[in-house]
Parts: sequence; C-alpha cells; structure tokens
Amino acid sequence: MTTLRVHNLAVSLDGFGTGEGQSLETPFGHAQHRLMQWFLPTHAFVSMTGHDDESVGSGTRGVDDAFAAATSQGIGAEIMGRNKFGPQRGPWEDESWRGWWGEEPPFHSPVVVLTHHSRPDLEVGETTFLFRDLPPHEALALATEQAGGLDVRLGGGPTVVRDFLAADLVDHLHIVVVPILLGRGERVWDGLEGLEDRFDVEATSSPSGVVHYVFTRRPR
Amino acid sequence: MTTLRVHNLAVSLDGFGTGEGQSLETPFGHAQHRLMQWFLPTHAFVSMTGHDDESVGSGTRGVDDAFAAATSQGIGAEIMGRNKFGPQRGPWEDESWRGWWGEEPPFHSPVVVLTHHSRPDLEVGETTFLFRDLPPHEALALATEQAGGLDVRLGGGPTVVRDFLAADLVDHLHIVVVPILLGRGERVWDGLEGLEDRFDVEATSSPSGVVHYVFTRRPR
Repeated sequence: MTTLRVHNLAVSLDGFGTGEGQSLETPFGHAQHRLMQWFLPTHAFVSMTGHDDESVGSGTRGVDDAFAAATSQGIGAEIMGRNKFGPQRGPWEDESWRGWWGEEPPFHSPVVVLTHHSRPDLEVGETTFLFRDLPPHEALALATEQAGGLDVRLGGGPTVVRDFLAADLVDHLHIVVVPILLGRGERVWDGLEGLEDRFDVEATSSPSGVVHYVFTRRPR
Repeated sequence: MTTLRVHNLAVSLDGFGTGEGQSLETPFGHAQHRLMQWFLPTHAFVSMTGHDDESVGSGTRGVDDAFAAATSQGIGAEIMGRNKFGPQRGPWEDESWRGWWGEEPPFHSPVVVLTHHSRPDLEVGETTFLFRDLPPHEALALATEQAGGLDVRLGGGPTVVRDFLAADLVDHLHIVVVPILLGRGERVWDGLEGLEDRFDVEATSSPSGVVHYVFTRRPR
C-alpha cells in the first residue's frame, strides 16, 4: 500500500517552518540556513551533493543522518507546494525558472507542483515537474499513480503539509524541532489542534541539539 | 550568587503554556491535566503529595523525576503571577481565597505574588504570600532579599516567565515540551525572537514522550 510521508520538516521551537521575507536570495527568509544546519553535515546530504570536502569528510552517521537517509527510501513521487519550487508568486511571468536544483534535481521521479497558475510539464534531468491546481486528495491520487507502487513524499512547505494533515492524508510525519526562536514566519502547527489523537508520537533528541519527532498514523 | 530559575514549565508542541478557558474547575483550561501528565508519576511529585498508592508505588526515578526533583533544591523564595495563585481576575472580591494548595502549600518559603490589586500579606503554613505590584527587576530584588542567599524560583505562569525573559533576568529555564497540539491558549514563546543568542540550549527526550529543554544563560 502506498503511504504518504513527510521527512525533514524543520520547525523552530516556536513553531515556524520558514522565516519572514522569502526571496530568491533568502529562500527561508530571515531564518536563513538555521533550520537546516543539522542536515548539512550528515552523510545523506554530503553524498547527495557530492560535497565530500575536508571540512565534513564523508559526513556524520549519527541519529540526524539516520533520519535524513530515510527521506528517499522507497519514494516514487513527490508532492510539493509552489513556494518550494521557486520564489515567484502569482502567474508565471516566463518559464525560464526550472527550480532551485540545477540540471539534475535530487528527486529522480515525478514531482507534482501544486499551483493555481498553469504551466506545461517540465522535464529536468530525471525529474518531471507536473504543475497542477488540485485539492489534496486529488493531488495524492495523481502522485500515487505516478509513484508506480512506491510511496509518495510530501515535500512541503509548511502550508502544504498543514493542508494535507488537515485532510488526514498523511501516514508518516517526521518533524525536526530546531532550538531557535524565529518569532515570525509561517506557522506549521496552526489549525491542527488534537493532531496527536490520530498519531502515535515519538521524540528523539540528537546531540546536534535538534529533536526528531515521528508521527505515525494510527490504523484507521 | 542568587540565580533566578524556572522549572517544569510545560508547553504543548505548538507553544501553549495553558489552554483556553481557565477557571476554578479547570485551572489549565481545555488543556486539563495533559500538560502535567509526565510529572504525576515521578517520585518527586508522589513524595511531595504523599500519594504513595498502589497505582504508582513510590514513583518513577527516570529522567522526568531527575528534572522534577531539581525544582526545589536550593530555593529560598518564589515569584509567581496572580493567575497561578488563583482563578480570580480583577480586584479581590474577598480575601477568603488562600491559594490552590490547602493549609500546607509546597513552597515553605516567601512567595511574591505579582498583582495589580493590593492585598495584605498572607501566611499559610510555612509559606508567606506577599502580594505586590512590581516590575520584574523590583520583584526579583524583593524575592532575592527574602531568599536568604538561596536561589529564587520563577513559578509561572507563561506570561510572567515571558516578561522576565524579555527583561533578561532568567538564569536557568527548564521547559517541558509535551507532544500535544492545544491549538489555543496562552503562548509561551511570543516576543522572544533570538532568545537562543543569550542561552546555551540542551534537549533531552524522555521515554514518557516529553522533551526536556534546559536553557542556561551565557556569562554576561
């Protein structure tokens, strides 16, 4: 059975999934890279980017890496919000923007990009971006069809994850709480009162200072 | 040197220190007892209340208890907000309310109760409640004087802790994040952007599901 999984959704201790003022130069707004600092030294990230340099060697292999490595295991398609694909808002002014990831994006699979503004499908390396205006359950149906029997990853951002949680479509939710107070930005937890009634929750603190939360949907 | 310490401040994963709708019957509002569930089975709590019954024996001795037990070590006075003392709001209609704790409150020390509404000092068992309308630094000066060389505990609630953090008067902050989403109530983290710049932060997950955060003020 295909499950819908969220991995590595980083949240500040005060509940913000991104900072304020997102732009091309600052995709996380005033949060800058602080929400992903735990991720950068992991073997999973280092081996993905090929940044095997002296400062990190081949990367750490601790609990942060164990969680980071799970991200792409058994995934056949991704769903992401339009704000994850790029910093533009409103109608596409031109179609030259091909995502943040260069000519070989790390997805290697179909990616459903949720947007109210239509645009032709886009192939970049082994990744195909499908731009669609769909409610959560229809987006999941499309991604499931594209995933060829594997799982679907819900790639964020925070608003998209919140929408799918509210629609009760998420089976696995991995949240990383980073011990910083952003004060402003996009709240992850709003409108989700009582979420714990539907999930088993496990918390694991890491020596890096973050806490990994795993929410596992209870059998329906 | 006297330090100002916060212990056992329980916060939901979405950042609420109490629920909505506090009253005499529901001191934590719709959160009910869920924020303190981790605390009740600890040896520290069981031995404090004398509730050594069959269901809990003499209480647990794990990480939750280690943190709970630190609460009263070396404390000579407490500062609390008026809402922790009682459910009344506005001027004291009468003075028959003597706190939630019966005739032997667990403080055994002077307690400065911050309130805009005056009331004579009140002795209950070994505890003396001093009702004062003071800004944070003056309240701390009074409590320090009362503490006789020991530390001062800042007992909450959330608003009071936030005020003292904003005034940069807190040396030790122990927060317990409970894996529930309350959705509404009193936010603990508001207005504290960048708090981590002033503190070293340590997170420890407990088998009970909560995460203990310890903020230690960096040397000034």
